[in-house]
Amino acid sequence: MKKSNYIEGFSKLSRNEKAARMGEFMDNPSNYENELQKYRFPDEKLQQQFEQFSENTLSNFHIPYGIAPNFLIDGNLYHIPMVVEESSVVAAASKSAKFWYKKGGFQTVSIKTKKKGQIHFLWKGSKEALYSFFNQIKPLIPEKIKTITQSMEKRGGGVKSIELKDNTDQLADYYELDLTFETVDSMGANFINSVLEKTAFFLKEEAEKRYPDDMEIIMSILSNFTPESMVTMKVECNIKDLEEADPHLTGRQFAEKFRMAVLIAEKNVSRAVTHNKGIMNGIDPVVIATGNDFRAIEANAHAYASKNGSYKSLTTISLDNNVFRYELSIPLTVGTVGGLTNLHPLAAKSLELLGNPGAEELMKIIAAAGLANNFGAVRSLITTGIQKGHMKLHLDNILLSLNATPEQTEKAKKHFKNNTVSVSEVKSFLNQQS
Amino acid sequence: MKKSNYIEGFSKLSRNEKAARMGEFMDNPSNYENELQKYRFPDEKLQQQFEQFSENTLSNFHIPYGIAPNFLIDGNLYHIPMVVEESSVVAAASKSAKFWYKKGGFQTVSIKTKKKGQIHFLWKGSKEALYSFFNQIKPLIPEKIKTITQSMEKRGGGVKSIELKDNTDQLADYYELDLTFETVDSMGANFINSVLEKTAFFLKEEAEKRYPDDMEIIMSILSNFTPESMVTMKVECNIKDLEEADPHLTGRQFAEKFRMAVLIAEKNVSRAVTHNKGIMNGIDPVVIATGNDFRAIEANAHAYASKNGSYKSLTTISLDNNVFRYELSIPLTVGTVGGLTNLHPLAAKSLELLGNPGAEELMKIIAAAGLANNFGAVRSLITTGIQKGHMKLHLDNILLSLNATPEQTEKAKKHFKNNTVSVSEVKSFLNQQS
Repeated sequence: MKKSNYIEGFSKLSRNEKAARMGEFMDNPSNYENELQKYRFPDEKLQQQFEQFSENTLSNFHIPYGIAPNFLIDGNLYHIPMVVEESSVVAAASKSAKFWYKKGGFQTVSIKTKKKGQIHFLWKGSKEALYSFFNQIKPLIPEKIKTITQSMEKRGGGVKSIELKDNTDQLADYYELDLTFETVDSMGANFINSVLEKTAFFLKEEAEKRYPDDMEIIMSILSNFTPESMVTMKVECNIKDLEEADPHLTGRQFAEKFRMAVLIAEKNVSRAVTHNKGIMNGIDPVVIATGNDFRAIEANAHAYASKNGSYKSLTTISLDNNVFRYELSIPLTVGTVGGLTNLHPLAAKSLELLGNPGAEELMKIIAAAGLANNFGAVRSLITTGIQKGHMKLHLDNILLSLNATPEQTEKAKKHFKNNTVSVSEVKSFLNQQS
Repeated sequence: MKKSNYIEGFSKLSRNEKAARMGEFMDNPSNYENELQKYRFPDEKLQQQFEQFSENTLSNFHIPYGIAPNFLIDGNLYHIPMVVEESSVVAAASKSAKFWYKKGGFQTVSIKTKKKGQIHFLWKGSKEALYSFFNQIKPLIPEKIKTITQSMEKRGGGVKSIELKDNTDQLADYYELDLTFETVDSMGANFINSVLEKTAFFLKEEAEKRYPDDMEIIMSILSNFTPESMVTMKVECNIKDLEEADPHLTGRQFAEKFRMAVLIAEKNVSRAVTHNKGIMNGIDPVVIATGNDFRAIEANAHAYASKNGSYKSLTTISLDNNVFRYELSIPLTVGTVGGLTNLHPLAAKSLELLGNPGAEELMKIIAAAGLANNFGAVRSLITTGIQKGHMKLHLDNILLSLNATPEQTEKAKKHFKNNTVSVSEVKSFLNQQS
């Protein structure tokens, strides 16, 4: 292990120079370069395309690209591409998709798509002066931002409202201009931020003319919190049809136990976090596979989970009238044009496999995947437990990493059916065999 | 666009058969297969290794693997590997690392590492009977789970406490066995879940002997919410040394404006979500590059942000005694052994580049990357705005996707310095040129 030292002007080095500098801190620099090379595309032009998505890029990180087939959503069938490194996520999604396919599939309850941006500013003058100023300025804004908005408006989107909010109860002199947007099939981050920055510039310019030094713009930026852009997705069936969910439980028993698990996730914060993580296990892989930004999706969903004062599950359940109805409500913003959706060739193929959906349709697909994974997780938890399936996959991975022969693998699988799996246990088992 | 249809037994098909079935739904099946092939490793054995990480894998999804150099953390220098598809994240991290390098770097304020698991159950008997039963059973648990815990205990980890919690104020008959764990350098999910399931099995077995039908185990699983496994990381400097942060602001002006932006993120939920998203922009890329699970990290962080009743920023600021001090407190659970950390060869190289840290050291590195990205975002927002940098990168990507010649690229860059960037604007500019 070698000590790192400060590197001046790293970003200006070529990719190979950057890799060589990093290699200096590795035990075996030439092996390091070989590894990095292994993860690059042989086609240097394609490699360059990927390097330009980010900065200081040395290679590519590979994550399995798989398919959860047979999702029936609002009567349409989808085979959903998922990018995920965690074992059993795709398997769980596929299993839930199959289970619900025969019961009417996933159904959209409601959907809305308004996004939000904020211009945060301080105003030292009187409140009345600010409101009067805003009312004069507001009608002039559309003309000022026309060069940015006109092409979005042609597609049916644009700025839908501009509202002045008095936040002086939160911080002295703090106000906000709150803009709502429709961005049709694009995620719209660049559009929204450009509109906000241009509007803020105009606002400040006009304020200087009439109320010099009264206004200080702090910052202008979209909000990743979008309670007005969200989808509610459900599955439902007769309770008696749930008897196939587990061989040891009747439909009613399964439904009641499932309901209890969901209620616990509503009440118990420590459980709610993991319950919602199980939703995101289904959601993020589709978000990534279609070239969208999972960090925005994550922040939005978990913030929404705490909207009523304490962190809660994003799902609700009812068993009224002998019908099991399980719903997920989640805020989402995604694009199917712009950004990486078309620049990343596999993201473009993902969208084609989904039938080139618009943003609304993609929101539904993503929500269905989230509900499917959560349903699968809760189903496992209340029946077999999750370790049975995990341990099988865990064992596969350990055997793989230890380069077990097919014969050893077979013996180990038999042995570990009734024994605890761990790297050391598998190692000592293999040693005993040889 | 072709209509998808239901596929029976998809998981049992070979990879190539799976790809061919998906190809049937694409406009050009052979082009689809070529694309999938392009993203696979030429080395079929390596490809198989990646396919086994997940299920139904057709290919690999590539995300840029880059380096944010020169992070000084607790006096040690790190070049941090980041896996991220969003432009400007690595650039922002690098810029902040450089800025703080000269000012003492990033410093750990505190760190703790306890994780938690829960056995959720219903108890229909009396509360007194349950507590008496628990007190008799509790001393017997360690022996019952010894086969799972002994190797973890050798490494210094294990079960640290077992507590019975009365949650009947939340739901009738609902109690919880709350276990805390130390898992040393492993993330520990499999360990924790195995301990929980075995403990729950023992509990139920014993309860049946003495209180038949009084206990129903609902589920046993780790919690991804870990307020007892978290790190607080800070940067600090004399306020006058911040004058280099922006050419138009004095150190004091920059500090005050920065403080206002941070206070807004404390008070305003819509802003807090995006503020924290900027932290996660720095965190997730390191989490992924080191083979850890970003969905667990995301759920944990955002749930913690709402711990006091409303969703807030994860950072705090003070300007006392003319010192700018900016802190991030974030719950984190990561591993540097086990899971994908060693199975994914580039993840293993990431850890080697970081000096093969233990889990605690990796937590600090990850927190520093998060604080760096957030500092960079807020710095941009309160000075130049974020669109200037974004638009430059956005233009690069658009030119790339339109296959612009070097000459066209140069002309476009000149033109779009003062014009709004969008795909349609760039297209029409290029058309005018040709």
